Amino acid sequence: MSLSLPGPTPAAVGTAKIEWVRRRSPVLDGFVRERLGDGALDGVTIAVVVHLEAKTAFLATVLADAGADVVVAGSNPRTTRQDVVEALKERGMTVVAAADGDYESWHQEMLAAADYGPTYIVDDGAELTLRMARHRPELFARLKGVSEETTTGTARLQAIAETGKLPFPAMTANNARCKHLFDNVYGTGQTGIQAMLRLTNRQIAGTHLVVVGYGFVGRGTARYARALGAHTYVIETDPVRALEAHMDGHTVGSPADVLPTAEMVFTATGGVRAIGEEDLALLRHDVVLANVGHSDLEIDVEALRRAATSIVHPREAVETFRLGDRDVHLLSSGALVNIAGGSGHPVEIMDLSFAVQAVGTHYLATHELRPGVHVIPEELDNAIAVAKLRSLGISLTQTRANQKEDVKEMMDGGHHDE
Amino acid sequence: MSLSLPGPTPAAVGTAKIEWVRRRSPVLDGFVRERLGDGALDGVTIAVVVHLEAKTAFLATVLADAGADVVVAGSNPRTTRQDVVEALKERGMTVVAAADGDYESWHQEMLAAADYGPTYIVDDGAELTLRMARHRPELFARLKGVSEETTTGTARLQAIAETGKLPFPAMTANNARCKHLFDNVYGTGQTGIQAMLRLTNRQIAGTHLVVVGYGFVGRGTARYARALGAHTYVIETDPVRALEAHMDGHTVGSPADVLPTAEMVFTATGGVRAIGEEDLALLRHDVVLANVGHSDLEIDVEALRRAATSIVHPREAVETFRLGDRDVHLLSSGALVNIAGGSGHPVEIMDLSFAVQAVGTHYLATHELRPGVHVIPEELDNAIAVAKLRSLGISLTQTRANQKEDVKEMMDGGHHDE
Amino acid sequence: MSLSLPGPTPAAVGTAKIEWVRRRSPVLDGFVRERLGDGALDGVTIAVVVHLEAKTAFLATVLADAGADVVVAGSNPRTTRQDVVEALKERGMTVVAAADGDYESWHQEMLAAADYGPTYIVDDGAELTLRMARHRPELFARLKGVSEETTTGTARLQAIAETGKLPFPAMTANNARCKHLFDNVYGTGQTGIQAMLRLTNRQIAGTHLVVVGYGFVGRGTARYARALGAHTYVIETDPVRALEAHMDGHTVGSPADVLPTAEMVFTATGGVRAIGEEDLALLRHDVVLANVGHSDLEIDVEALRRAATSIVHPREAVETFRLGDRDVHLLSSGALVNIAGGSGHPVEIMDLSFAVQAVGTHYLATHELRPGVHVIPEELDNAIAVAKLRSLGISLTQTRANQKEDVKEMMDGGHHDE
Amino acid sequence: MSLSLPGPTPAAVGTAKIEWVRRRSPVLDGFVRERLGDGALDGVTIAVVVHLEAKTAFLATVLADAGADVVVAGSNPRTTRQDVVEALKERGMTVVAAADGDYESWHQEMLAAADYGPTYIVDDGAELTLRMARHRPELFARLKGVSEETTTGTARLQAIAETGKLPFPAMTANNARCKHLFDNVYGTGQTGIQAMLRLTNRQIAGTHLVVVGYGFVGRGTARYARALGAHTYVIETDPVRALEAHMDGHTVGSPADVLPTAEMVFTATGGVRAIGEEDLALLRHDVVLANVGHSDLEIDVEALRRAATSIVHPREAVETFRLGDRDVHLLSSGALVNIAGGSGHPVEIMDLSFAVQAVGTHYLATHELRPGVHVIPEELDNAIAVAKLRSLGISLTQTRANQKEDVKEMMDGGHHDE
Repeated sequence: MSLSLPGPTPAAVGTAKIEWVRRRSPVLDGFVRERLGDGALDGVTIAVVVHLEAKTAFLATVLADAGADVVVAGSNPRTTRQDVVEALKERGMTVVAAADGDYESWHQEMLAAADYGPTYIVDDGAELTLRMARHRPELFARLKGVSEETTTGTARLQAIAETGKLPFPAMTANNARCKHLFDNVYGTGQTGIQAMLRLTNRQIAGTHLVVVGYGFVGRGTARYARALGAHTYVIETDPVRALEAHMDGHTVGSPADVLPTAEMVFTATGGVRAIGEEDLALLRHDVVLANVGHSDLEIDVEALRRAATSIVHPREAVETFRLGDRDVHLLSSGALVNIAGGSGHPVEIMDLSFAVQAVGTHYLATHELRPGVHVIPEELDNAIAVAKLRSLGISLTQTRANQKEDVKEMMDGGHHDE
Repeated sequence: MSLSLPGPTPAAVGTAKIEWVRRRSPVLDGFVRERLGDGALDGVTIAVVVHLEAKTAFLATVLADAGADVVVAGSNPRTTRQDVVEALKERGMTVVAAADGDYESWHQEMLAAADYGPTYIVDDGAELTLRMARHRPELFARLKGVSEETTTGTARLQAIAETGKLPFPAMTANNARCKHLFDNVYGTGQTGIQAMLRLTNRQIAGTHLVVVGYGFVGRGTARYARALGAHTYVIETDPVRALEAHMDGHTVGSPADVLPTAEMVFTATGGVRAIGEEDLALLRHDVVLANVGHSDLEIDVEALRRAATSIVHPREAVETFRLGDRDVHLLSSGALVNIAGGSGHPVEIMDLSFAVQAVGTHYLATHELRPGVHVIPEELDNAIAVAKLRSLGISLTQTRANQKEDVKEMMDGGHHDE
Repeated sequence: MSLSLPGPTPAAVGTAKIEWVRRRSPVLDGFVRERLGDGALDGVTIAVVVHLEAKTAFLATVLADAGADVVVAGSNPRTTRQDVVEALKERGMTVVAAADGDYESWHQEMLAAADYGPTYIVDDGAELTLRMARHRPELFARLKGVSEETTTGTARLQAIAETGKLPFPAMTANNARCKHLFDNVYGTGQTGIQAMLRLTNRQIAGTHLVVVGYGFVGRGTARYARALGAHTYVIETDPVRALEAHMDGHTVGSPADVLPTAEMVFTATGGVRAIGEEDLALLRHDVVLANVGHSDLEIDVEALRRAATSIVHPREAVETFRLGDRDVHLLSSGALVNIAGGSGHPVEIMDLSFAVQAVGTHYLATHELRPGVHVIPEELDNAIAVAKLRSLGISLTQTRANQKEDVKEMMDGGHHDE
Repeated sequence: MSLSLPGPTPAAVGTAKIEWVRRRSPVLDGFVRERLGDGALDGVTIAVVVHLEAKTAFLATVLADAGADVVVAGSNPRTTRQDVVEALKERGMTVVAAADGDYESWHQEMLAAADYGPTYIVDDGAELTLRMARHRPELFARLKGVSEETTTGTARLQAIAETGKLPFPAMTANNARCKHLFDNVYGTGQTGIQAMLRLTNRQIAGTHLVVVGYGFVGRGTARYARALGAHTYVIETDPVRALEAHMDGHTVGSPADVLPTAEMVFTATGGVRAIGEEDLALLRHDVVLANVGHSDLEIDVEALRRAATSIVHPREAVETFRLGDRDVHLLSSGALVNIAGGSGHPVEIMDLSFAVQAVGTHYLATHELRPGVHVIPEELDNAIAVAKLRSLGISLTQTRANQKEDVKEMMDGGHHDE
């Protein structure tokens, strides 16, 4: 046996992390590589602008291995990992991102990425797309397509398209079933709770836990919390979803009903001010707030700051706001707690989501699509699921139940009509 | 205290059962009565053709109380309860159904119902609609609308509409969220397992249990089975659903993978021959088969009969087929086990589903709709959910999170772009 | 294929039911038969006094097949099934029980069973043992042992033993792990809820459900109810168990806290008046009460009768008590709802419990034990579990982790002390 | 609003962490302080030798606030947090521990703690007690008592007591219900999985996960894993526990059955070599091994090292062993993964466990107990649970169900015997 210690350089550490991701990314490492192997991306410039950690880095290398010139930037100044940046650079890739930046330096990085004049963008929240539209209109006009990761980014692109200002096709990963059915429910469901428990060292069993919003992310969070023994409460504005939450065993109520006993609160609405200024008076002493929705603005942090008589940092990524005689704890400054305060989605989840992004980009490069927002075709979506099942050793069952009846037979007297 | 024993007549027993249903039907008994109270159904003839037990009877009385001339028949010869029939007759309602009939007598009942010349049908599986199309074309031509309960019936109506032979509008209850999100998942999920356990007196904890089909019914069944400690297996042809089943903790496999160890099998595909002739050789000795999908044909009972060397009836609603050296048990002859072998859906579930049917019928009577298959408007669907929530003492939260952004602001520089 | 319909006689129906039980009783049918095959029970008279349905009947046949002269009676007048009685008689067994009896006729049956002068009793609640002590003192003095099924019966035997009036050894099945760990948690947990849902046709998802008592039965009931989506509440007097209930995700509170919103209440204390007169004013309109503990007296039915202004029977096994403006529904008159209102425990559970009883009786016959209450030896308990595992195809893992350390080594410097 | 940033010193950081613990430790901070306020510990020297992080530090301060002279050391060289050490020192407490030590330096710290001549020890694994017995026999002879945290430590003390060499009483916290029912099941169940997911960034839903040992820790781990959607497998040598695991929905099998498909393995036996040399050939490529039992020796790390052709460190706290063509990942070098690779138990759990320790120590100081291993009296155990319930706002229900019957009444004719 020989002992080979990891190299001491950040690049080596980053490389090991990317390799760790590859192990659990059979779809990207197999099916996607194969599909992208037709040369369609050869020499094409692709900007990859997603939270820059090991999983994103592996996506970038798969695109690069398919022949693309990849420019990598981060989609948020706080989530870039320097060792991963070093690893990508060592591999010869163009990276315009650095850890420990602020919003200003990050904005400059984005413009730098834009200046490479990408043909396609793999975007997150449409951050680069929007900046190119505003600050680099000529390069924007030359874009041939965007593959967007999130619901929020899709809504933004849709809004632009509706005003007629989207001159190219955009593929929205989030509408793929392989993305939103897994990423939001299982991915955020698991990792949001994980981050909450790690950052607070608190127990979940027996805890009064509120989830605001019962969409995919909200129900994933609430389901796992209840499974772990929490007393779960849901705030939801859609009556049918509220009824589903009730029948799933969660207690449904208004903020005034459920916030005063809440010990943990997760926001999962995808909107802004899901916990707003008017809710602060309802919060119980020692409650912990965390956001698992999209925007940093789901918890009205500004209102918290204004209302607080003091703010202290008792633990990493925890801020305690003093409101009268109550303390309210906020995790990760209201940013996505599973990304900012954890490691983001599990590798296996991003294998699916990034497969959608990679295949979507390849689809843009091989098809003539009209400008506007598109979903990847159902057969591609299914093919990704099949590749994942195959990697799990699950062979898919062929259709066997005949779900069609003959109209003529029905009208002439069906099987019940003898 | 005075002791008032129940009257000895079947009608009194049936009346008590209907009153039991009323107790847990706040939507029908409140919201629906109110909405139907505008006289729109006054003197209108409505045929109600649904499994004729106490819940259906309560729906019929609500329609009658709204002024309609109601004709009641059963949607299946095996599920009519005589005491309920007597109770409705005592109340003065027209009933053309009798328990203990066979398919032939039932067919005659249907034609008798048709001969009342209904203006609207509340149908189940489109059974009466199809018969009127074939056997009573003139009365069929005078129909003003149908409100259909099931997926299967909807598919049939859709098929007819596509051939241009549906001269009136049909409302499909199953597409209402208040129907398919609850009835299929929670209703069938609970009652299918209940019927299996009652008819067999077997234990579910630790049992190898296969669900064929991972649609709404299948996932409800699999979820509850797993929650009760079963080892759950899923057969599914759609790759994305198969992947969901895998991540929900069920073992996914082909029939050849999972049937040989199965101790209980539920079919939930909505198609025919979900367990077909080619699967019989895979079944394990002492397995129990039950159907919770729509059609009686999900389990190929004819193939079972052909293959068996003997058939015995060891318990009520159980048939044991001898296949070589193996015994295969079939529940309720392959009919819907929760209806034929149990009491059907819980009252609370049918309160929602029948509210959709009643409101759908009222909508037909108050709107001019073009021929074809329609869904009840979202606001009506929501109103039913709100009524249900209100009956549970849950006040709905008003929209608070602002999910819209301003496109102009985005293009000009969003909040991240300072 | 030949069609063999079941014989029309009750005996044939009973025989088919007993055969149904045999299929899922591999421990009784295999391991127990083998162990009892040594002739030790040859010609010995054994009274079997347990709820007389098919599972008990199969136990009786196994004892008879081992050579014993078996006298069968029921442990409760309401739970005897006539077809099973006929089947046992047809087989030539002595049965002193009849369905549709009352407490007086049942008492006479017990005395008749006593008059056979049994050497051993397989008892339930010590019903026959107590009667023999009182009414047949001479035959009581000649008893060589009793194998008792329940906690309550064990407590009674223990109480008698403490006064020095138990002249023979008693084996208590309930202290065997193969009995109380399974029967109480999984068996009653499943079947109590099953009976509640069947008798009421109500939905469990979203229901406010109270369990009184968080012992084995209570936690089984609460666990399964929560798994099915109920909002579960627990009333418990032991503070540590109350804390466990809290951390298992149930809401713990006093009767005054939790009864006013309860829609379903299960008593599971093993005591009397778990729901007593003082609780009646707390009950909500339309609540359903059911008992899954031991005694018929857990719900104070007499107090209900006294308080009611009317009593009606809306459905089979349901009584509705009018208390002021509220209706309170009682299932199965407060008797064990899973037995009186259902089919009792699943077959697989009783296979374990009755194996303990049978092996316990055999142990009494082959060992000289001092008077008093005994537990079956751990190795027999384990052997039953091993037989069950083997029938499931599970091979037991041999001990591999060494859990012992050497004291000397510790004192001289353990592994941490280098 | 004034912004008060945390002080830059490690002591300030440690102090903030201890205050964070205090917030969720109502039992230690209330009930225990009150009980210890009688002066019984005034001037008494107590050595606290437990994993030295914020929760232990809070226990130490509570003892010190009660008047004791507290000497603090760590029970493992790897789990000491320097900021917490600094905070305790700043507070004036004696601490003989430093982070980043090795086993040799730790051993010296233990001897230094011993040299303070403690009257009582709050021990973990009996680490200090054993060292004093061996290396400081004279000081050992003057000890008046030990309060021990763990099962392993208790077994060691018991073993010593059996040889007659334990001259003082020892209280074993682990036998208190407030300790083992919560700490092992909920505490380790939650945090072991948390550590696994954090260290690997893997997904738990759908994962094949093996738990070795189905005691309290094993079943907590398996329960939570299954609740999160894992496919759970259990290896267990006790047949009754194996059967419970089966009925709880886990697949039970031998190592040869279940290891070849395992993606995550947790050892929870409390013994050594739960995964031993003979199992290595069974492990699947890319499996992750983690230990949640007591000893570092549950996974035979030495065997892994011998068998590996290379060892790399792909991520923090992960070692990858190359075995032929397979990679096996080990977390935290086989130490307790929830402590070494996480933050240990949730605060709320340790509030209970440490309350037992503190009250146990106080009990030693206020009672004359004979030498040997003792359990804290049931009423103290209950009082802790009551204090916890009270802090949760749960008022305990008084005994209401009468569980006693009168023997005389029984023998003379009980309630069933009219």
